[in-house]
Amino acid sequence: MARFFIAGTNFKGGMAIIRGRDAEHVRVLRLRPGEDLTICDAQGTDYKCRLVSAEPDRVEAEIIDVVPCPGEPSVAVTVLCGLPKGDKTDYLIQKCVEAGASEIVFFLSDRCVAKPETPEKKLERWQRIAEEAAKQSGRGIIPSVSWAGEFAEALNIANRKELKIFLYETGEREGLDAVLEANKTAESVALITGPEGGFAPFEADLARIVGLHVCSMGERILRCETAPVVATTAVMYATGNLS
Amino acid sequence: MARFFIAGTNFKGGMAIIRGRDAEHVRVLRLRPGEDLTICDAQGTDYKCRLVSAEPDRVEAEIIDVVPCPGEPSVAVTVLCGLPKGDKTDYLIQKCVEAGASEIVFFLSDRCVAKPETPEKKLERWQRIAEEAAKQSGRGIIPSVSWAGEFAEALNIANRKELKIFLYETGEREGLDAVLEANKTAESVALITGPEGGFAPFEADLARIVGLHVCSMGERILRCETAPVVATTAVMYATGNLS
Repeated sequence: MARFFIAGTNFKGGMAIIRGRDAEHVRVLRLRPGEDLTICDAQGTDYKCRLVSAEPDRVEAEIIDVVPCPGEPSVAVTVLCGLPKGDKTDYLIQKCVEAGASEIVFFLSDRCVAKPETPEKKLERWQRIAEEAAKQSGRGIIPSVSWAGEFAEALNIANRKELKIFLYETGEREGLDAVLEANKTAESVALITGPEGGFAPFEADLARIVGLHVCSMGERILRCETAPVVATTAVMYATGNLS
Repeated sequence: MARFFIAGTNFKGGMAIIRGRDAEHVRVLRLRPGEDLTICDAQGTDYKCRLVSAEPDRVEAEIIDVVPCPGEPSVAVTVLCGLPKGDKTDYLIQKCVEAGASEIVFFLSDRCVAKPETPEKKLERWQRIAEEAAKQSGRGIIPSVSWAGEFAEALNIANRKELKIFLYETGEREGLDAVLEANKTAESVALITGPEGGFAPFEADLARIVGLHVCSMGERILRCETAPVVATTAVMYATGNLS
């Protein structure tokens, strides 16, 4: 079923009025009066609607039902990644949103190859990728994409979550599965992963001192754009959001 | 540590002799005598070696230790995918190999958009992507990529595995997590996923009749190139290969 986020929609007296880009989209999809569509408020609630009229710039639909969005996971996962090179960011955002992440944060770490002077300029495009992926995969929110700046700030953001995990590929670590099994009821989880070259040992030390779980995902070396997707999927599995 | 598969390597009296492309690769990496490298036999065993000499076309290394490859999962996952369009195949192969799949099989199903006349021609490139990903991620085998032809043959291949799972996004299904929890000791698992447009209902019916578990991964709609990666990760998590 066609799915829209509420941007450009007004709810009035049991009706949803869609304008702008989304109204155009309804036309492109050739939806006809009597057909159903879902309008999501981007805060976890779906409005099931039936199309009444579709004009070029104004679409009206009757609200049939209001339900919690079934695609929205019960756990809020914040993915924090050392900024990778090139368009790996795009892939990472799209796949993490599909996998169920609620928030994606990029930061600079010691071994980042990409060191953009104005990463803020990319935020608009990154946010659009997140919105498209959220719409396509049936999410109930539009996960935010943001820029933390330095590694220390990423640690700070992670530290505000209930369960905080730093994924590291060497040295003494806990198993990711054991940590997740022991924290199945956590409502918010931070997952920190590194850039192409991984983390420097002092960064892992710092994460440990701050109180994060330094975890292993096994002996396979995952690319920097793959690790966050695998880690997010592990959280979804452990918290019953993959059934 | 630099890592090679055995192709082009001979083991003789405690020494490994590397020739051809891999010998060239040792030179490109500027490895020097005394440095360590790992040569994997592509059957799950790693030979830890120390470089003795590196000539343009012939590299000699002393075998220091022989160990089971730590990156090789304990479960053999066969990923069977309805052929997706364009370079989604490449992505799918690379990420499934990283995630731990042992075998990737493409097939034609009712809603495949891509209907190549000679998919066999692509196998060589696909296999090279699998080999690169296996080398990079520290796998102990080179997962094979193959072409099954029709959907019925994919079902046939799946049916020879201990646990057979058909991932489907609608109708009556078991939770993937429940099925995996009940089959943690399976040594071989088949995961069937669909092309861009998903499976036709008659294909799901057939899978059910043949005795496959028809499973859900939750209400998020995963892209055809994402679903196999998420499903493979779920199997790795459930079988203790993500710790």
